[in-house]
Amino acid sequence: MDTIRQLVKNHVLGNPIRLGIMLYLLPRGRVLFKELQKVLDVTPGNLDSHLKTLEKAGYVKLTKVFADRPRTAVEITDKGAEETGKYLRTLKSLLTGVM
Amino acid sequence: MDTIRQLVKNHVLGNPIRLGIMLYLLPRGRVLFKELQKVLDVTPGNLDSHLKTLEKAGYVKLTKVFADRPRTAVEITDKGAEETGKYLRTLKSLLTGVM
Repeated sequence: MDTIRQLVKNHVLGNPIRLGIMLYLLPRGRVLFKELQKVLDVTPGNLDSHLKTLEKAGYVKLTKVFADRPRTAVEITDKGAEETGKYLRTLKSLLTGVM
Repeated sequence: MDTIRQLVKNHVLGNPIRLGIMLYLLPRGRVLFKELQKVLDVTPGNLDSHLKTLEKAGYVKLTKVFADRPRTAVEITDKGAEETGKYLRTLKSLLTGVM
């Protein structure tokens, strides 16, 4: 049951919004804040607070990009990609056990 | 991206401890509170509060069983098994997309 415990103890990715952010970022690398907000259907304040948690954990970096005007972009870090991959493998092994 | 949104919006199973409870219950049907607490490595108060949320959602039933002394048992309901299965299928389709 170590895998279930591993899942339960992951406070960064345990939140479904943060897991959703990382799942969306993983195959894309970098996305605009606005796009992420639309995809997840959350308020800017809510998304911002979850991004701060992910940034503090070193999973994402917030940067400014200049499209038609300055915009906030969210970029996955090497650590973020690695930790998300690890978490997904844990989840997958649990799912294989029960489905 | 509807599947990511589905994941993000599930407030009952979005919590990793509650997901862990349901993952442990699913193949077992019914387990003792004490056992669940040990497996997940959480405090009784913490487990109790998550079980109340699951009970309110109709996912589990708390019952008393008499082993050597009265003990609390946690039983998965039909609705709980169905909703957990649905959530796991959503997760699985997301994982297949990125791994």
